[in-house]
Amino acid sequence: MKKNAVKKDFPVNLVRRFLEPGPVVLVSSRWKENRDIMTMGWHTVMEFTPSLVGCVIASSNYSFNLIRDSGECVINLPTVDMVDTVVKIGNSRGGETDKFSEFALTPGEALRVEAPLIRECHANFECRLYDDSLVNKYNFFVFEVVKAHAALSPKYPDTLHYTGDGIFQTSGKLVDRKTMFREEILAT
Amino acid sequence: MKKNAVKKDFPVNLVRRFLEPGPVVLVSSRWKENRDIMTMGWHTVMEFTPSLVGCVIASSNYSFNLIRDSGECVINLPTVDMVDTVVKIGNSRGGETDKFSEFALTPGEALRVEAPLIRECHANFECRLYDDSLVNKYNFFVFEVVKAHAALSPKYPDTLHYTGDGIFQTSGKLVDRKTMFREEILAT
Repeated sequence: MKKNAVKKDFPVNLVRRFLEPGPVVLVSSRWKENRDIMTMGWHTVMEFTPSLVGCVIASSNYSFNLIRDSGECVINLPTVDMVDTVVKIGNSRGGETDKFSEFALTPGEALRVEAPLIRECHANFECRLYDDSLVNKYNFFVFEVVKAHAALSPKYPDTLHYTGDGIFQTSGKLVDRKTMFREEILAT
Repeated sequence: MKKNAVKKDFPVNLVRRFLEPGPVVLVSSRWKENRDIMTMGWHTVMEFTPSLVGCVIASSNYSFNLIRDSGECVINLPTVDMVDTVVKIGNSRGGETDKFSEFALTPGEALRVEAPLIRECHANFECRLYDDSLVNKYNFFVFEVVKAHAALSPKYPDTLHYTGDGIFQTSGKLVDRKTMFREEILAT
């Protein structure tokens, strides 16, 4: 994935295409002069419209306060070729260095939030905090995806899926069963 | 996956190995004389100990009331060879027929809950409802995995990951980056 790959607007109600398969994502955030990037594997789509995504962000993470204070973040989708960068970010400490510089990632300007997006990623989902009622108890944030961008191709990028213990599964071949689906199920 | 494949107890604090990669799962439930099976793609691990999993279960689903009334379910992990069964269940209507009979699945007795588990699945996670505070607003259930069972092999089964529109990604090759991880990160 090149940082200058062409991306276009992606419908926010369709972000499940990228997030429902369960990839590791990179979350970028900013509050005042501080910015950060963290890895995240604990997330789920929660609704199509509004486009809601629920995420666990540990309070021990440097990003936690940036996201809570700003009420914003960008969820970025890295591809398999970025695995070493993903691992390095997951094993780094926040607040000590600028992670964009440290990991040679290019910050891009988001359209609807102040947090930077990561240009090298296949897709970028600009998020606003929608519901923080489970943050104190479970570090669980509900975000609304207010703007989405995705590379034009491939339609189904190769992604990383973390299993713990330093081991990732990658996405494999596609299985198309569209003809077996009822119309009203396909529409959801 | 054969219905008589040997399974053994699996530590509940390690269910992320199977669930964090984001597979489609089959949720089985029972309340009084009624039982059901549904497909689910919107779920996330939320905590290791207690072993918490958050799940969106649409209130329009026949399983919704069985799960809410019983406060229990089993999350079952199907493998790629079960794709047609998964699609048929996802496109069926609840309450009209017994899905175990209709889809030739074998109910098994769970140890800690009354809901039946699905023997043909690679792993079974017995769940009790832990927090229903977001059910009314988002159909979001927080379950505690109180008992887990998994087939002895393969360690990393081939799973299905739904992208919408009738298309699944399957899990592909493994990428091991354990040597790049800090000890304290591996432990979580």
